[in-house]
Amino acid sequence: MVSMNPRLLGWLRAYRRDDLAGDVGAGIVVAMMMIPQGMAYALVAGLPPVAGLYASIVPPLLYALFGTSSSQSVGPMAIISLMTASALAPLASPGSALYGMLAAQLALVSGAVLLACGLLRVGYLANFFSRPVMSGFTLGSAVVISLGQVRTLLGGALPHVHGPSAALGVGSIALLLFARRWLAPLLRRLGMPCGAADVAARLAPMVLVLGGIALVASLRLDRMGVQVIGAVPSGLPGLRLATSAAHWQELLKPSLLIGFMSFLIAMSGAQTLALKRAEKLHTNRELVGLGLANVGSALSGGFPVTGSLSRSAVNFAAGARTQLAGVITAGLLAGALVLPTGWLALLPLPVLAATIIVAVLGLLDWSTLRTAWHYDRADALALLATSGGVLLLGVEAGVVLGLLLSLGTMIWRESRPHIAVLGRIPHTEHFRNIDRYSAETDPNVLLLRVDAGLFFGNIEAVSERIEEELAAHRAARHLVLVLSAVNAIDSSALFGLLELNRALARRDVRLHLAEVKGPVLDRLRASTLLSELSGRLFLSTANAWNALARHDT
Amino acid sequence: MVSMNPRLLGWLRAYRRDDLAGDVGAGIVVAMMMIPQGMAYALVAGLPPVAGLYASIVPPLLYALFGTSSSQSVGPMAIISLMTASALAPLASPGSALYGMLAAQLALVSGAVLLACGLLRVGYLANFFSRPVMSGFTLGSAVVISLGQVRTLLGGALPHVHGPSAALGVGSIALLLFARRWLAPLLRRLGMPCGAADVAARLAPMVLVLGGIALVASLRLDRMGVQVIGAVPSGLPGLRLATSAAHWQELLKPSLLIGFMSFLIAMSGAQTLALKRAEKLHTNRELVGLGLANVGSALSGGFPVTGSLSRSAVNFAAGARTQLAGVITAGLLAGALVLPTGWLALLPLPVLAATIIVAVLGLLDWSTLRTAWHYDRADALALLATSGGVLLLGVEAGVVLGLLLSLGTMIWRESRPHIAVLGRIPHTEHFRNIDRYSAETDPNVLLLRVDAGLFFGNIEAVSERIEEELAAHRAARHLVLVLSAVNAIDSSALFGLLELNRALARRDVRLHLAEVKGPVLDRLRASTLLSELSGRLFLSTANAWNALARHDT
Repeated sequence: MVSMNPRLLGWLRAYRRDDLAGDVGAGIVVAMMMIPQGMAYALVAGLPPVAGLYASIVPPLLYALFGTSSSQSVGPMAIISLMTASALAPLASPGSALYGMLAAQLALVSGAVLLACGLLRVGYLANFFSRPVMSGFTLGSAVVISLGQVRTLLGGALPHVHGPSAALGVGSIALLLFARRWLAPLLRRLGMPCGAADVAARLAPMVLVLGGIALVASLRLDRMGVQVIGAVPSGLPGLRLATSAAHWQELLKPSLLIGFMSFLIAMSGAQTLALKRAEKLHTNRELVGLGLANVGSALSGGFPVTGSLSRSAVNFAAGARTQLAGVITAGLLAGALVLPTGWLALLPLPVLAATIIVAVLGLLDWSTLRTAWHYDRADALALLATSGGVLLLGVEAGVVLGLLLSLGTMIWRESRPHIAVLGRIPHTEHFRNIDRYSAETDPNVLLLRVDAGLFFGNIEAVSERIEEELAAHRAARHLVLVLSAVNAIDSSALFGLLELNRALARRDVRLHLAEVKGPVLDRLRASTLLSELSGRLFLSTANAWNALARHDT
Repeated sequence: MVSMNPRLLGWLRAYRRDDLAGDVGAGIVVAMMMIPQGMAYALVAGLPPVAGLYASIVPPLLYALFGTSSSQSVGPMAIISLMTASALAPLASPGSALYGMLAAQLALVSGAVLLACGLLRVGYLANFFSRPVMSGFTLGSAVVISLGQVRTLLGGALPHVHGPSAALGVGSIALLLFARRWLAPLLRRLGMPCGAADVAARLAPMVLVLGGIALVASLRLDRMGVQVIGAVPSGLPGLRLATSAAHWQELLKPSLLIGFMSFLIAMSGAQTLALKRAEKLHTNRELVGLGLANVGSALSGGFPVTGSLSRSAVNFAAGARTQLAGVITAGLLAGALVLPTGWLALLPLPVLAATIIVAVLGLLDWSTLRTAWHYDRADALALLATSGGVLLLGVEAGVVLGLLLSLGTMIWRESRPHIAVLGRIPHTEHFRNIDRYSAETDPNVLLLRVDAGLFFGNIEAVSERIEEELAAHRAARHLVLVLSAVNAIDSSALFGLLELNRALARRDVRLHLAEVKGPVLDRLRASTLLSELSGRLFLSTANAWNALARHDT
């Protein structure tokens, strides 16, 4: 296992010359992906395309310094851009100076939240979304993003389509889909090595952008009404953050949601790649890296960023061995902005819209739906409900819905634990489920084994089941809970047991505990349960049986 | 166990004459509590006091017809009134006709939500709040409610206190506290039976209200500036609901939160009492009963209602045996409104404020905090954070925070499952944790036993731990996961195992499964894991050992 050095810049201290070629190659390839993606996702966020280039320089640099994944590519990402647009829509109009400042503020607050979470070491928050819910969230977001680009793609709202724009847009989609499906196999057949062909095919959007610019310039399509991005200010961005105090509070909630989702998105991508290389991610360091990347984006004219799985996978495939690849990407983007940027002005918007639509279609993951449908219908329904929630209620409500569905399906599963009535296998000290074994029971004693940790989500169900069993065993004056499979008892469950003990005592039934695990027992000693218990604490079920059963068998 | 008849009106069909005396007595006592409480909680909700009387007639009647708890007293309740006031504050000004209509609409939508949940049988939602979080929510709400009454209690905002009002208010608090602490013991010493003394002491607020009215009438305190409730319209309420379409959408979210909390509050009270009598609640029927009670409240000039633990406990203690007690309470309240209500006009508001403050102080439950603090610090912190959230962010944010903290503490506990490296006890077929037993291992094979169900909340932690163990056992070419303690694998965990299998295969490590439980195996057969597995499926750990170990021991 290539355990990453957890120290700051560990990868640089331990840098090996052998890794240089891979890092440089990957850095260049990712930069070529980043230029069209950055501009496209800035459009999704409702910002001028150049903001996407700004957000592609400082964030990957800071992530390289503080993050722990060797292949993570941090920068603009479609879903986070959609969330940015959704958060800012009620506060300012896209294109205004205020809108740009608020976008930066959103990145600043999201970054601060991520940073705080990292320093507080609450990285386990990454475990709050189930995989199907994440997939449903992505599905819904991808549809919303695609629909949002249709007008730009066609040069007007349906049915008023602008012919040249639509031709350019739809043609671009066709070319990009062709590249995705057929270009890599074609290059391979032409003799290119497998990995190189796959990576080269990912450069299609950049090639298309250059082709689009050339086409507009040669045919003067802009004079025919095809929208272009217009003048891109050359040079590096300065400090663009303005404090508009009135908006801080309104940005807090969306910042929390954006911070949360950018962490989930970055981690799910990084973990998949880390597994392939047996690399260890430090979750809390990832939070810090991602948080600083967002703060850096805010301070350099950008907007919220995260790790992009599509770019990270290319980074990985193109041979990135360390975070140096990210540094090189950042350097190239900065270089592109220092050079004259006049050539970018003629980039046609329908081409960018096409790259957005094809990119988000690539996020769709039908295999998760298919697998979940066959394996666990509840998870499949949670997936569909989450995507429906994003479509109908919006992306922010979708996050909350996803969270509730993830946790809800889990609580639902945990809320009915398996409980077995035990009996003794005759002439032994073994006790087994009487439904499965022919075991002897005693009318005076009811032995129940609970096969799950006790917590607030199941203690009521356990109490109800106990009442049912007591009703079915009316003669029993002793209830023995066999806790051999109980790994934990939370305080809600402790209160439940205290109440059960008192209620049973009033009805002349004694409550006993048996086979309590060491760590659980240690905790219980800090409560009053053991001293209040109407019955006794037994080391083993056999001890309880010998003490309580009538021994007439 | 007195299993309640799950059929509609089962209690009536099976009514026994013996229960009549208890039901009548309890119905009268609860009506005497309901009159001051109803008016007081209407004030908390920002409504005229008579609305509280309206909300005390139809709701208990409908609950009696459809609910399943024999002692539940449904009607106005402090926390739900606070949530009502909080929901309506941005939409209308208290006292206006619109405010009253919106309060009824809120009850209608909450009721419809509860009804829908009952018909959809999602009663397990009651398990979403941990006990400490519920306690923290109550604590925060009680403080907010008390602070909201200080101005009414003192007849003005501090430091501008109105002498006579303040004297009346503070004196009432003193009397109520005295009654709560000393009245029951005093009555007992005077020879009253224990139970009767406790119940009689709960009538102190009604006695105080009557005394307050007499005092105002005799000293004409109202002419000295003590605020009184004024004319109370006699007669029963008609249909008061007005549809103001524009507000429906704004009421949806608060209605969901109010419906959710009224269910949690009603269930936690009813469950405690049901346990004492071995009575079985039907959670989904409870949802229906509570939902219809709210719909009925809406249609009769009321506002959101729920079960009140303080009244239900008195109902129980006063001898209520069936839902007839609730019917009698409703009848008495209706009777009180049909009779002339002029005498109520002089009821001084400071006295009502005093009853509110003393009632919500009675909701405080320090023992939960104390117990949780010693037993489970994380739960105690969740309690404090929830109450702080209600105080600082408001009652609605408090519900969401409570939900996230309940589920968050649980995920956090589940996110680090116990995993043991197993070895063979020499010359046996038993395999045990090598940290605890001197067991033999084989460099070629790594045996790991996971002691928890696998789900989205822990699969990443499990994968990480597996990587760590593989790094520590570099020679191992076979990883055997012993799943004897795994009760379930959700689809997120399935994807995790699929990825682990592929990643290990690439690194030339085979993944095997052993001791997979029957139900888990059945589910896995619906996935591709078993066919994709690089290794094999073993019935027992011993089989895996015999097949994979080098047998040089």
